[in-house]
Amino acid sequence: MEVLRLIGKSGACILSRARSASACRRQTGPTPLSLLQQKRHYAESGNHIMVERDSNNEGIAVVKMNKKPVNSLSKDFMMEMNITLEKLENDSSCRGVILTSANPGIFSAGLDITEMYQKSSDYTSAFWRSLQDFWMRLYGSNLATVAAVNGHSPAGGCLMAMSCDYRIMAEGKFTMGLNEVHLGIVAPFWFQELMVKTCGERQAEMALQLGTLFKPEQALRIGMVDEIAPLDDVINKAREHLAKWLKIPDHARVITKGMCRGLLLEKLRAKQEEDIAFFSEFINKDAIQKSLGRYLESLKKK
Amino acid sequence: MEVLRLIGKSGACILSRARSASACRRQTGPTPLSLLQQKRHYAESGNHIMVERDSNNEGIAVVKMNKKPVNSLSKDFMMEMNITLEKLENDSSCRGVILTSANPGIFSAGLDITEMYQKSSDYTSAFWRSLQDFWMRLYGSNLATVAAVNGHSPAGGCLMAMSCDYRIMAEGKFTMGLNEVHLGIVAPFWFQELMVKTCGERQAEMALQLGTLFKPEQALRIGMVDEIAPLDDVINKAREHLAKWLKIPDHARVITKGMCRGLLLEKLRAKQEEDIAFFSEFINKDAIQKSLGRYLESLKKK
Amino acid sequence: MEVLRLIGKSGACILSRARSASACRRQTGPTPLSLLQQKRHYAESGNHIMVERDSNNEGIAVVKMNKKPVNSLSKDFMMEMNITLEKLENDSSCRGVILTSANPGIFSAGLDITEMYQKSSDYTSAFWRSLQDFWMRLYGSNLATVAAVNGHSPAGGCLMAMSCDYRIMAEGKFTMGLNEVHLGIVAPFWFQELMVKTCGERQAEMALQLGTLFKPEQALRIGMVDEIAPLDDVINKAREHLAKWLKIPDHARVITKGMCRGLLLEKLRAKQEEDIAFFSEFINKDAIQKSLGRYLESLKKK
Repeated sequence: MEVLRLIGKSGACILSRARSASACRRQTGPTPLSLLQQKRHYAESGNHIMVERDSNNEGIAVVKMNKKPVNSLSKDFMMEMNITLEKLENDSSCRGVILTSANPGIFSAGLDITEMYQKSSDYTSAFWRSLQDFWMRLYGSNLATVAAVNGHSPAGGCLMAMSCDYRIMAEGKFTMGLNEVHLGIVAPFWFQELMVKTCGERQAEMALQLGTLFKPEQALRIGMVDEIAPLDDVINKAREHLAKWLKIPDHARVITKGMCRGLLLEKLRAKQEEDIAFFSEFINKDAIQKSLGRYLESLKKK
Repeated sequence: MEVLRLIGKSGACILSRARSASACRRQTGPTPLSLLQQKRHYAESGNHIMVERDSNNEGIAVVKMNKKPVNSLSKDFMMEMNITLEKLENDSSCRGVILTSANPGIFSAGLDITEMYQKSSDYTSAFWRSLQDFWMRLYGSNLATVAAVNGHSPAGGCLMAMSCDYRIMAEGKFTMGLNEVHLGIVAPFWFQELMVKTCGERQAEMALQLGTLFKPEQALRIGMVDEIAPLDDVINKAREHLAKWLKIPDHARVITKGMCRGLLLEKLRAKQEEDIAFFSEFINKDAIQKSLGRYLESLKKK
Repeated sequence: MEVLRLIGKSGACILSRARSASACRRQTGPTPLSLLQQKRHYAESGNHIMVERDSNNEGIAVVKMNKKPVNSLSKDFMMEMNITLEKLENDSSCRGVILTSANPGIFSAGLDITEMYQKSSDYTSAFWRSLQDFWMRLYGSNLATVAAVNGHSPAGGCLMAMSCDYRIMAEGKFTMGLNEVHLGIVAPFWFQELMVKTCGERQAEMALQLGTLFKPEQALRIGMVDEIAPLDDVINKAREHLAKWLKIPDHARVITKGMCRGLLLEKLRAKQEEDIAFFSEFINKDAIQKSLGRYLESLKKK
């Protein structure tokens, strides 16, 4: 059966927990106020990720990225994110995740440019693999995932948001988009196909060629986000929306998610080494390194 | 040539009548009033399907589902629907079909749950095959098909509507959507791909995961229906729209339709046995049977 | 690496110039007035195509189709268009193209019907090949391309517009669409897939079956065009928009474009001979020839 085959191949995460998951369904009940009072915090390694769980049986974890100053995606941070998601995936008391930022004004600045500048080919290869692995974990997660985009979300930040099941973006001056092309960097096929799946082929092609950063209303119009909310309400709205997801029997929700996402996950898995080799060779070209150098200089001057 | 190959393989229905079809084009002329006066009714086997033809040369058949109380899709009813469509397909005086309901307030409640509850594996296999065969007949029909959705249209009802060439939905409290997931049932790949083709990937993934039932305005916004009309005007609007389809030379319309639909038809045809085996095994799992049992109990209490 | 492989195979045009292109980036500066004063015209063979270049370093060429009366796409005209684009592609001072018409009220009437009527199979085959070659050149161009649709744009005219990176359509009574089906002609798979990529599957299937010609507001709504402007402002708007494209480093823009377009280009390249054989056989059928004959008669009477 293709469905099962695809899901089976698309990794450990999809379906493995689904079989017995319907048993662990429970009611959501508490008001946001009671949740606030009951919540307990614990920090992951290095204080870069805060995971907030509720002491009731709601089944939701809020994952707050807290890597100063802009949640840039370094190799180590992506490995931490991957481990954090894996733990939640294996925690039978957790059924849904809200992904958000603890750093005001920024969801994530995307890939850490310093990790691609004047590094060995081995390093950039390991860096890219950590991105792939983190992305396959997030996009292929059995958990219901909602992005509470509470700040700017360019490049890899946009990728993370688009990989969740639902996106709520804060109103205001924030922008979101795959803008890599401005630095001379080409978004790989899986960034591109994810954007096509999210926004449609026409909008994706244009936005990828122009590296467009969208304001919240624009992002909503093209389907890059599903909802807009005032900044201080984004996480509450995410919680409300996630509750809808958790009303669905887990096994049926997870198999359905796998059918929608399995092909793209499978495609990256099949081409993972090629994709790494391509990135590593591309990013270490003289012209690209010079472009990154100029960009890093311009950041220092700010 | 791929086009012909696809169309050829995608079944008896597409293209077989197209070759000589341009010869049988004729003018549409009569007003709705004259049609009303001229129409003759005849009932198919078991009174479950009423087919209204006009005595003029308009070429339109109105197929009214009349299986009390909610046009639920049982094995026998789907076989009758299949035969009805096949007859019209082979009737050179018929070029277009309006699919609608004779039961007030409901287009179709979708698959008959009692056909999947406490049945043998052989029975559920035969049941699923009758759904596949009916769907391939409807989705791959050479006839121009318009759904006049004059009532609720969940699950298999939504599938039937999305398989027509055009959908008009009645204003009001009615809803439409693939909501199987609420019962723990996973929509098979061809339901899913049809919804992606109709509503786009983003909306389809979200609606399939959440089992969303859409109100008419929402269904229009996401492309699940093409038009909304007052309840008592739905069939007239369908007739008006179908007239546009019948202005196109049949051979060119049918080949174009086959190019748009051939791949998905071909895919199901290639996987038909796998799809049956998967459904039959899935639906007979203890957990799913218990879920169906609870649902049937809750219906009895109403 | 699939990306490179696809781009490599998809023809001489994509990527060949990209490698050194980032070096030739330059600033856009002059106002439309200064451009007007500085521009030089030169005519291509036969006066059917006017190419306007600016004497400054803006890097934009305006290609004006000037085949009286309606820029119909004859074999020779398509070969001229192909050569014109190839020259610009190989001209390192050119980075972007505006495609528009010098004939008032019409962008292009599409394929020249007289080229398909009572011709030998060899001739119709050569005719179709010239369309394929021209289309692959335009759709796969390394240049940033903007269509300034300053008049009606049916059939092949719509195809040209949809093959550019961006489309601006003039306000007013003009229409655009793939309306071949009205003549009994079936749009080939690459027309169809291009329309699906541009407008989405639902709108494409419906419009292709009905041969719909869209007014500017409708074309904007379904994504067939990206912008609407007053007729006398269409080229200025195209120039403004193209400037955005030219701010992107060429190599990254071109690789991104190739990733979005490579598969469809590759598919036609692989099926080019089949597609020619199918067209040539189809168009020379008696029924189709009669239909074309009646259409040409009706044109004469006007």
